[in-house]
Amino acid sequence: MGTRSKTETGNFFEDFTVGQAFAHATPRTLTEADAALNVGLYGSRFAINSSDEFARRLGLPRAPLDDLMVFHVVSGKTVNDISLNAVANLGYAEFRWGVPVYPGDTLSVRSTVLGLRENSNRESGVVWVRSIGTNQKGETVLDYGRWVMAHKRDRAAAVGAPVVPKTAAAVSPAELFVPAGLALAGYDDGAAGSAHRWEDYEPGERIDHVSAMTLEDSDHMFSTRLYQNTARVHFNAHTAKSTRFGRRLAYGGHVISLARALSFNGLANGFRVAAINGGSHVAPTFGGDTIYAWSEVLEKAALPGRTDVGALRVRTVATKDCPCGDWPGKTPDGRYHPAVVLDLDYWLLMPRR
Amino acid sequence: MGTRSKTETGNFFEDFTVGQAFAHATPRTLTEADAALNVGLYGSRFAINSSDEFARRLGLPRAPLDDLMVFHVVSGKTVNDISLNAVANLGYAEFRWGVPVYPGDTLSVRSTVLGLRENSNRESGVVWVRSIGTNQKGETVLDYGRWVMAHKRDRAAAVGAPVVPKTAAAVSPAELFVPAGLALAGYDDGAAGSAHRWEDYEPGERIDHVSAMTLEDSDHMFSTRLYQNTARVHFNAHTAKSTRFGRRLAYGGHVISLARALSFNGLANGFRVAAINGGSHVAPTFGGDTIYAWSEVLEKAALPGRTDVGALRVRTVATKDCPCGDWPGKTPDGRYHPAVVLDLDYWLLMPRR
Amino acid sequence: MGTRSKTETGNFFEDFTVGQAFAHATPRTLTEADAALNVGLYGSRFAINSSDEFARRLGLPRAPLDDLMVFHVVSGKTVNDISLNAVANLGYAEFRWGVPVYPGDTLSVRSTVLGLRENSNRESGVVWVRSIGTNQKGETVLDYGRWVMAHKRDRAAAVGAPVVPKTAAAVSPAELFVPAGLALAGYDDGAAGSAHRWEDYEPGERIDHVSAMTLEDSDHMFSTRLYQNTARVHFNAHTAKSTRFGRRLAYGGHVISLARALSFNGLANGFRVAAINGGSHVAPTFGGDTIYAWSEVLEKAALPGRTDVGALRVRTVATKDCPCGDWPGKTPDGRYHPAVVLDLDYWLLMPRR
Repeated sequence: MGTRSKTETGNFFEDFTVGQAFAHATPRTLTEADAALNVGLYGSRFAINSSDEFARRLGLPRAPLDDLMVFHVVSGKTVNDISLNAVANLGYAEFRWGVPVYPGDTLSVRSTVLGLRENSNRESGVVWVRSIGTNQKGETVLDYGRWVMAHKRDRAAAVGAPVVPKTAAAVSPAELFVPAGLALAGYDDGAAGSAHRWEDYEPGERIDHVSAMTLEDSDHMFSTRLYQNTARVHFNAHTAKSTRFGRRLAYGGHVISLARALSFNGLANGFRVAAINGGSHVAPTFGGDTIYAWSEVLEKAALPGRTDVGALRVRTVATKDCPCGDWPGKTPDGRYHPAVVLDLDYWLLMPRR
Repeated sequence: MGTRSKTETGNFFEDFTVGQAFAHATPRTLTEADAALNVGLYGSRFAINSSDEFARRLGLPRAPLDDLMVFHVVSGKTVNDISLNAVANLGYAEFRWGVPVYPGDTLSVRSTVLGLRENSNRESGVVWVRSIGTNQKGETVLDYGRWVMAHKRDRAAAVGAPVVPKTAAAVSPAELFVPAGLALAGYDDGAAGSAHRWEDYEPGERIDHVSAMTLEDSDHMFSTRLYQNTARVHFNAHTAKSTRFGRRLAYGGHVISLARALSFNGLANGFRVAAINGGSHVAPTFGGDTIYAWSEVLEKAALPGRTDVGALRVRTVATKDCPCGDWPGKTPDGRYHPAVVLDLDYWLLMPRR
Repeated sequence: MGTRSKTETGNFFEDFTVGQAFAHATPRTLTEADAALNVGLYGSRFAINSSDEFARRLGLPRAPLDDLMVFHVVSGKTVNDISLNAVANLGYAEFRWGVPVYPGDTLSVRSTVLGLRENSNRESGVVWVRSIGTNQKGETVLDYGRWVMAHKRDRAAAVGAPVVPKTAAAVSPAELFVPAGLALAGYDDGAAGSAHRWEDYEPGERIDHVSAMTLEDSDHMFSTRLYQNTARVHFNAHTAKSTRFGRRLAYGGHVISLARALSFNGLANGFRVAAINGGSHVAPTFGGDTIYAWSEVLEKAALPGRTDVGALRVRTVATKDCPCGDWPGKTPDGRYHPAVVLDLDYWLLMPRR
């Protein structure tokens, strides 16, 4: 009586054990509505996600849902068990998309704890998890590792010996998943919005995406709720007043999706985000910030057995309130330009000639 | 010429007669989009409304639309005829949901005036109506009574003798509608997000839902428009400047849905709102307010002929800018804690062991 | 390397040639979600777009998407090629809707340059284009002319002799497209929300739509993104600070849709926008503005071979922060009342008795 016993308060560092498995709550059936909301929230213009006809010409049954939206939904489900008491999201690795997700598919997510290491201050520790999102047929739609810094509930709580998993520095091109049936002979550059194909990009090339998008509190809260992500820092303006920022923080994934939508201007034919090699939410963003982005081509790779599609490794940097014509990124001393909010290294699939 | 003759200005107290019937305008086909928007607007995480697969395991054809969204759509249709000139929404009674609503169902609403009583100041009066929402097959999806205080157009207008209908203090558990085909043997606590079933709750038990959600003007206006609710106080910041609040008021139903979404943390297995016994919008809410909620178990009831599902009578109190660990509610003198905005008494269906 | 060569910066006046054809990027499959968002964004209550059952009683397969949403989607696709460097949208002509658009239809858009005339200051010029939106079967869903003033990139650039196309002053009633199979014998005034049919309106009649809607930045940006419209003035609060307005401008189409939704109160049976004769975005609107509207009946026309449906030519004027009971429009000196933001002349279809 009068207790909070039925209220979940999330796991703290000392609650995790290596090998621990979670089947996260609230499976979600994605629909055409999620596709439309992805357009409305971010302004995405990639034809494969916008037009059933375009997708069918590529051998797919219909327009798949945006790859990043799949990530947001999968990631959102892990929050309540993994990162409700997280201080920070530290990194991603071995992050690969699997089969495309279509309207009507129901996603479920499970996670396994891969590693744990208490910080020297004994106030917190790093938790490594691998999360796998699957559809209703059990097929993997996304598989990724991430590590977060989690608070301890009790500084004195005993914890096990550190276990630090090895993660690959990047996803190998040979490991990128190409959707079954995909065939790009009928790829329509005009409908896609760009004549630039895989052959036209070179490592070292930089692209200023020029346009920008101002973020509103209403928008980032809506998208974060849509992903059933319960991280409190995004939703509570009342308690945020007494934090060091004084405001709600936008969900970092919202900025990733905005940067992806902005990157259309220069990377319109990068029709699928196939993997993330690493990424950092360099600084928080807030309602009222205007997001800009630029990209750099890091690497090109052919794909085994494919002549119609290649992989482009891209780094996209997003800033706030700072146009990107001067490529704001890391300064010579290794620190970031103060306007940078995101630095993401990922693989795109792109049609070849 | 130059007249307003084609413009509806709504009914005033003296326009109503006991027994008067309304078939409200604009039937609405609900779709998967409404389901997604319910998630995006409120952050709802109840598995039955989120996953077609989860719903099918319970014997339903697919995920039904959120019960409160059905209420909002039904209620919204009545505004133009019943409450466009209302001063206040005074109460609800005999408020029961019927058959579940699925994407593709089209809802229509009709209302009957049950009672009328002029106030002693002759400026206004109370109007009792019963409203019934039906689907395209004529099945009842929601049936409820409410009473509102409506302005008179003309203080001097003659009105009939008072007719005050009797309403039950609460919906009896035996009257709660259990959807046909519902069978909870396959209910998955893990997917639903809680191991607490009907047996685990006791009358008197209190649950602090802990999390909170800040309300934005853009959000409550969007949801209120989505329900085709035309109540002007929610939409016009220009004329609101000269009201006593100086601002637009959020639709009270928006707060009910936020409180329901927050209540997931502690009541995740309360998979269906089956009835409302009574409720009060204790104070208005505005863009910028942060909504918190707590609940108290009032009563438990078995359902006739069912061993897999029981009913839990719950009171949920929502506040603004006030965490609920101290159970803000009615103070000993019978008045409400100044932070309280909603006090709702309702029946949930919950799986039994 | 280090270039912006892959970034589209849009066409300038001197880039256009008469007869030039564009197949615009990013076809879009419209869905039930777009229908729901049209309700949520504007509060539209027209029964034909809200209820599949209502639409079927009129001989249509299901509820078609809102006519103005079709315009917004078609128009949005033209921006990147036609008006990214436009100073202003000057006018519309010969603007007719074709076959209705249903959920699942995929829209593509092409445009042809009809005329070009450099301004005397040589800084800019007027570009006339005709744009045609088609569905996946190649049927026309919208066909319209518009002219915009476009910047020159280089004042000194040589341009051709002026070509100024002739456009009709209004769409002739005989040219209005009536959807195949449409039959209004079963038209339900009660469900539609009005007993006023075509016979009840007379030229010269004015209707104050009374209600109003406050515009939020979050709302107009969402809708403009939903239409994949890339016009930068709507999205970038950072650079907007140094413009003469100091703020983001709302997409003019957002105001058209708000005015249409408001016009329901008085024109509820104007179930289809069939054509636009002309229109002017008289003044910009911004987040925080409250939109009001009034309409005037300009003309009535029977339709060839139809006794069940007639055409009503209506002028709708929208204002900001100004109720419309005094019909704010053009003042005697030919200038607009300072509150006017939109003046639109269009044809509605309406059931006859």
